[in-house]
Amino acid sequence: MPRYEGGGDRLVLKLDSGYNVGIELGWIKGVEKLPDIERPAAAAAAAPAPAGGLPKVLLLSTGGTIASRIDYRTGAVTPALGPEEIYQSVPELAKIAEITPRVIFSEHSENLQPDHWKKIAEELHAASGEGFGGVIVAHGTDTMQYTASYLSFALSGFPAPVALVGSQRSPDRPSSDAAQNLAAAASFLTQVDSGIYVVMHLDGNDGASACHLGTRVRKNHTSKRGAFQTVGGSPAYTIRDGRLEAGPGDRLAPGEYRPRIAVDPRASLVKYHPGYDPAVLDSILDAGARGIIFEGTGLGHVGRQMYEAVGRAAEKGVFMGMTSQCIDGRVSMTVYESGRDLLGLGITPLGDMLSETALVKLMWALGIKDDIKGVRNIMLDRIAGEFSPGVF
Amino acid sequence: MPRYEGGGDRLVLKLDSGYNVGIELGWIKGVEKLPDIERPAAAAAAAPAPAGGLPKVLLLSTGGTIASRIDYRTGAVTPALGPEEIYQSVPELAKIAEITPRVIFSEHSENLQPDHWKKIAEELHAASGEGFGGVIVAHGTDTMQYTASYLSFALSGFPAPVALVGSQRSPDRPSSDAAQNLAAAASFLTQVDSGIYVVMHLDGNDGASACHLGTRVRKNHTSKRGAFQTVGGSPAYTIRDGRLEAGPGDRLAPGEYRPRIAVDPRASLVKYHPGYDPAVLDSILDAGARGIIFEGTGLGHVGRQMYEAVGRAAEKGVFMGMTSQCIDGRVSMTVYESGRDLLGLGITPLGDMLSETALVKLMWALGIKDDIKGVRNIMLDRIAGEFSPGVF
Repeated sequence: MPRYEGGGDRLVLKLDSGYNVGIELGWIKGVEKLPDIERPAAAAAAAPAPAGGLPKVLLLSTGGTIASRIDYRTGAVTPALGPEEIYQSVPELAKIAEITPRVIFSEHSENLQPDHWKKIAEELHAASGEGFGGVIVAHGTDTMQYTASYLSFALSGFPAPVALVGSQRSPDRPSSDAAQNLAAAASFLTQVDSGIYVVMHLDGNDGASACHLGTRVRKNHTSKRGAFQTVGGSPAYTIRDGRLEAGPGDRLAPGEYRPRIAVDPRASLVKYHPGYDPAVLDSILDAGARGIIFEGTGLGHVGRQMYEAVGRAAEKGVFMGMTSQCIDGRVSMTVYESGRDLLGLGITPLGDMLSETALVKLMWALGIKDDIKGVRNIMLDRIAGEFSPGVF
Repeated sequence: MPRYEGGGDRLVLKLDSGYNVGIELGWIKGVEKLPDIERPAAAAAAAPAPAGGLPKVLLLSTGGTIASRIDYRTGAVTPALGPEEIYQSVPELAKIAEITPRVIFSEHSENLQPDHWKKIAEELHAASGEGFGGVIVAHGTDTMQYTASYLSFALSGFPAPVALVGSQRSPDRPSSDAAQNLAAAASFLTQVDSGIYVVMHLDGNDGASACHLGTRVRKNHTSKRGAFQTVGGSPAYTIRDGRLEAGPGDRLAPGEYRPRIAVDPRASLVKYHPGYDPAVLDSILDAGARGIIFEGTGLGHVGRQMYEAVGRAAEKGVFMGMTSQCIDGRVSMTVYESGRDLLGLGITPLGDMLSETALVKLMWALGIKDDIKGVRNIMLDRIAGEFSPGVF
């Protein structure tokens, strides 16, 4: 019998209730295979199968809790499952789509770097000619929003829908959200044409998953299953028992596929706070930063003590964009004298773009443009729904 | 007639509707003072007056939109009003309390620094023996939560209730929230015994203001009047038409007054993101930081590339605390191997403390303790409701 745990003197079995029970090996008198039983109908109803069979869906695995199991020795969760195992752990997937599993790497997402984003984009691009009706990207939740933003920019107009899926609780826990989110993502992919979305539990209850635009989503709770939210709006879609419901939130109209897979990580996010030492900004510039996203206060401010360092950054030709640590709402730098001062120093207000999305977009823009004017033009061009229409 | 605008050839009058109208000076044939008219009853009902007159409330002004007016030449909002003018602009205050106005300084709050927090605390401490039933601190909204946290720690057990009050729209705008928030704060102060709170609109509607615990509040929208929210809970109180309603949220039991007014700003907030350059953390350490608050991903993580720099910080005796950029929920560093690694490197998990509150608390702790152990003990001691009971 397969056992996750190498050592130990116990066999861990999952009960029908979802809970696990450990049995001392010495107590086991025999192991017998029972005849196959009919599994109850999967919660996720099968999508209508096209002529010739189920839709083809690619499942790319990058790691994260969704591909993890608990190490019962240490109690920690480690990434371990390959996509085949993910697939096998959610048998209802087979009723929704014909899944092709593929591993890219196996990392918790806090360890992912811009080069990992690029690697995922390259895998997606390579698969774009293989006739898949959609792609699931299994991904850790910690930095899922950063990766979703990157893919939204680098693969704008990707010819098939992409769903980043994670779980807040590992698949071997009774409260795991992995199965529902995977099934919802597969159903979703068979019912839409394009766009890069994050598919996670709608709230703390089982039953509904939400599909968030990749550039407008944020992990807003450390542990709840419904942690992911579309900021400043509603999810683009919800999926209940396999049925797609269009939400009131933003969706992207299909556009021409324009892959631009590049990244330059020489950009920093500067969250301003009282007592911020401007010498830190100078250090960031000395280390070779080509761009800064400020996460300012309120409508987009930093304190007066920063002005000289901001001026030095402008002289160096560093792109500086302004977002707000309020998270919701848009920056507006003409209301107060501080905002006007900062506009005068060359900071570009970024509307209601999330600071994390703005940072990713900047790293991407720096990867495809050498000049600050080109970078600025890209930052103000609405590519993947990253800011509200008419915000500038 | 008083005119805000020095130059210009127009007189700006406020109409009953709340809107302004500009009249060319040349068109004015005469100015006549009409007999005083009876003002309609104020929205905020007077609190029950104690024998001997209305409760005495101190109004300290620090600047901000609540003390601002629009510059009709540039369209920008600049801090200008003294506390007498604030007071006069909200005549209903006189029915609720006997207000003593006092100016500390006049700054938009994005320009406030830890020394300003100290100055406000010193003014409050000095006034603690003057017999006021409560204190209103008029303050800009941008960094109000930072100041509220500081006062909560430095003046723990302050013998009278304190309400920080701001406005999202300047007092000369029809949609201003200044009058309601000031009146609500005054009513609030006459009905509670102690505690440091932020009093702002409950939501986008007029009528109700919310009282948030100073250490649990966050400005979560750039411009809405109901921008302030108690994170992970409900407001401690709401005020509707002058009536206090206890909410389900945390309140503080009255305690012994223990003023400890000190601050050491040599602490930084490090918001982690993919591609974070560990050299930046090294620069922060080289610049003399004595403490770092990480705003990590998810349950409290930073990427593996940070580990060496984190280790160097630990060797230098720098305090390092972990919070989450998810904002809601608590960090938990024993679930994943990344968290365990970081615990091993000496990072202290800070439960569900907000990152901004944690930074302020750290600057305060560094001001009163020289040794890292003493700082750590303070960080884990629940002083002003800054984390949930039993979180450690």
